Amino acid sequence: MPELRTDPISGRWVIIATERAARPTDFSTPPVEVNDLEHCPFCPGREGRTPPEIFAVRDPGTARNTPGWHVRVVSNKFPALRIEGDTARSSVGMFTRMDGVGAHEVIIETTDHHTHLGLMPSREVANVVRAYLQRYRDLDGDDRFEYALLFRNHGRTAGASLSHPHSQLIALPVIPKRAAEELEAAERHFGRNGVCVFCRLIEQELAARDRIVFESERFVALQPYAARFPFETWLLPKEHRASFGALGEGDVLPFAEALRTTLHALHSCLNNPPYNYIVHTAPYTDHAGHFYHWHLEIMPRLTQVAGFEWGSGFYINPVVPEQGARFLRECAMKAGAEVLAPGGENE
Amino acid sequence: MPELRTDPISGRWVIIATERAARPTDFSTPPVEVNDLEHCPFCPGREGRTPPEIFAVRDPGTARNTPGWHVRVVSNKFPALRIEGDTARSSVGMFTRMDGVGAHEVIIETTDHHTHLGLMPSREVANVVRAYLQRYRDLDGDDRFEYALLFRNHGRTAGASLSHPHSQLIALPVIPKRAAEELEAAERHFGRNGVCVFCRLIEQELAARDRIVFESERFVALQPYAARFPFETWLLPKEHRASFGALGEGDVLPFAEALRTTLHALHSCLNNPPYNYIVHTAPYTDHAGHFYHWHLEIMPRLTQVAGFEWGSGFYINPVVPEQGARFLRECAMKAGAEVLAPGGENE
Repeated sequence: MPELRTDPISGRWVIIATERAARPTDFSTPPVEVNDLEHCPFCPGREGRTPPEIFAVRDPGTARNTPGWHVRVVSNKFPALRIEGDTARSSVGMFTRMDGVGAHEVIIETTDHHTHLGLMPSREVANVVRAYLQRYRDLDGDDRFEYALLFRNHGRTAGASLSHPHSQLIALPVIPKRAAEELEAAERHFGRNGVCVFCRLIEQELAARDRIVFESERFVALQPYAARFPFETWLLPKEHRASFGALGEGDVLPFAEALRTTLHALHSCLNNPPYNYIVHTAPYTDHAGHFYHWHLEIMPRLTQVAGFEWGSGFYINPVVPEQGARFLRECAMKAGAEVLAPGGENE
Repeated sequence: MPELRTDPISGRWVIIATERAARPTDFSTPPVEVNDLEHCPFCPGREGRTPPEIFAVRDPGTARNTPGWHVRVVSNKFPALRIEGDTARSSVGMFTRMDGVGAHEVIIETTDHHTHLGLMPSREVANVVRAYLQRYRDLDGDDRFEYALLFRNHGRTAGASLSHPHSQLIALPVIPKRAAEELEAAERHFGRNGVCVFCRLIEQELAARDRIVFESERFVALQPYAARFPFETWLLPKEHRASFGALGEGDVLPFAEALRTTLHALHSCLNNPPYNYIVHTAPYTDHAGHFYHWHLEIMPRLTQVAGFEWGSGFYINPVVPEQGARFLRECAMKAGAEVLAPGGENE
C-alpha cells in the first residue's frame, strides 16, 4: 500500500509509492559524465577566460588570475543578476517589479576537472566551505541583499552546464518563496512549541535512527520522513544555528567531512547520480533568528520529475526513506575503506 | 538589465533575465518524438493491455474494452495511489501519515498514436474535455477525496513515459501544497479587495494586452507577468468559476477551441516542445468558493530547469513574457491557415 506522508516543516504531502519502484525506467539515469575538458574555462591556466577572481585559496606568492589556486571564486559570466543598481520597487496595477540587482558567483572547487566533492580529501572540501563562508559573509555586508542562495548542480540533467566541479552563490534583494515559507513555518512552530522544529526533528530522528544516513559528533545526515525524491538527504548541524554564516572555523572541517562522506555515499552507492544541493539558511536580514536552523538539502535526480510536480507541489517518491537510508548506510559501510581512505586523507 | 518580478497571486519572485537568452544551450530541446508504437498499450486493438475501461466516448453499439472508442479512460497500470482503504491519519511524534488512498486514471485522448491535442479538431478535443469533466465530477462523489489533480505531460523530458496522447487525473485525500497556497492567497486577496484576484488579473491583462496570446469570447490565454518558464502560458475562463467541474456543456467546445489553439501555437511556433499542463481548480471540499477561479497552466520545458529551482522556489526565466506572448501571437497569425483550418474542422 502506498503511503501519504506530510513534512512536519512545510506541511507538504508526498506519496511514498513503493509499487512504482518496480518500473525499470525509474532509475535509468546514466552516471554523470565529465566533458568539455578541452574548452573548460575553470581549468588552471585558463584564468583569463573567466571574469576576474573575487576570492581564492592560493599558494603563497602566486598572483590573482593565474595558476596556484586551490579554490577560486569568480562572477558568473552569464549572471542572472547585475551587481549595479538599486532595489527600488515600482508597480503597474497589481504587478510589482524591481531591477535585477544581485550577485551571481561561481565557486570553482578544485583544479581537477575530473574529481567531485565526494571524492576529494576532507581538507580540500574544507577549503571549499571556507570559500562559501567568505563569500556568504562578504555579500551580507551589502545592505541591498536579503538572502543568499548557495547551491550546487551536479550533472547536466541537474542543470550543470559545465562539468568542472563548482558551486554557485546568488545574493538576492528578496527572499525566495520556499525560503520564506520555511522560515514562517519554523517561526510558527517555535511560537506554538517554544522549540526549534529542526532541533526537535534531529532529536526524534536520532532516537528512532531509521532514517539516519550518517552521524558524526557535530552533524547528522538523514533522509526526511516525507522525502520528495529517492535518496533525498538532509545534512544538519546538531548545534542550533540559524545562519550558515555563523559556522565557526572549528566546525568547518567537521562540516566538510560530513558533506564529503554523504556525497561519497551517494556517488559510490548510486553510480554517480546527478543531484542538486541547496544550503537552507536564515536570511541576511535576520540571521540571529532563534527559530530557524540552517542545513543543506541534497536532491538526487534519479527519476524523471514531471513538471507538474513543481507546478503542483505534489511529489511521488518511489523509494521509502527508511529503506533508502538503510541502503546508503549499509553500502557506505561496505565501501568503508573508500569512505575513510587511509593515509590521513581524511585527517 | 535583468528584472525581478513578483507574481501577484503567489508572491513568488522571478528573475526575467534577458541576457541569458543568448546562451545557445537554452533552447536546444529537441522536438518531442513519437515512439513505442509497436508496444503501445493505448492503441486501438490493445484494450486488453490496460486495466478495464472506466469511461469512454464510443461509437454506438461497440462494447467496452474493444475498439470503437474515441476517448477512453482507464486506471493507471502503475497507480501512485490505491482506491481501496480509508483516510484515517496516524502520527508518530511529529510525523503524520495516512494510507495512500486515491484514484489515478489515464485519459487516452485519441486512437491516433501520432497526433497531439494541438493538432486535433476542436470537436475531438471537446470529447477529451468531456472525459475530464465526467471523471472529475464522478470522483467528486467519493467523500474521501479533497482534490483532483488533472494534468498532461507531453514528451519524455516532461515526464511522459508513453508517447500516445494522454492526460492523467489523480484524486487525492489531501490538498496539494501549491494548490492550498494559491487558494489561501486568493482568499486573502478577496478578503482585502472584495474581488477575485484572477478576475482582476484578466481585466488588467485584457486592458494592457501585452501578454495576451489568444482571446476568444469566453477564454483568454496569456503569459503571466512573473512567468517561471519561457512561454509559460495560462488559459483562463473569463467568467468567474471556482471549480473546473462547474464548466457547463455550453463552454466545453469554446474551452476545447481555446486549448487547441494555444497548444497549436506552442506546437507549431516552438517546434513541438515538451510541456506539462495542470488544471488549477478549487478543491472538492469547497467548489463554490467565491474567491477562486479555475484555470489551466501550461509549462513548456524548453530550458533545463535545475533542481534547485523547485527546491528554492526561485526561477530564472530567459524570455521576457511580453516578447514571448508577441512571438506566439505573431507566429500563430502567420500560421493562421493551420490554426483555423478550413472545412469546418474547427466547427
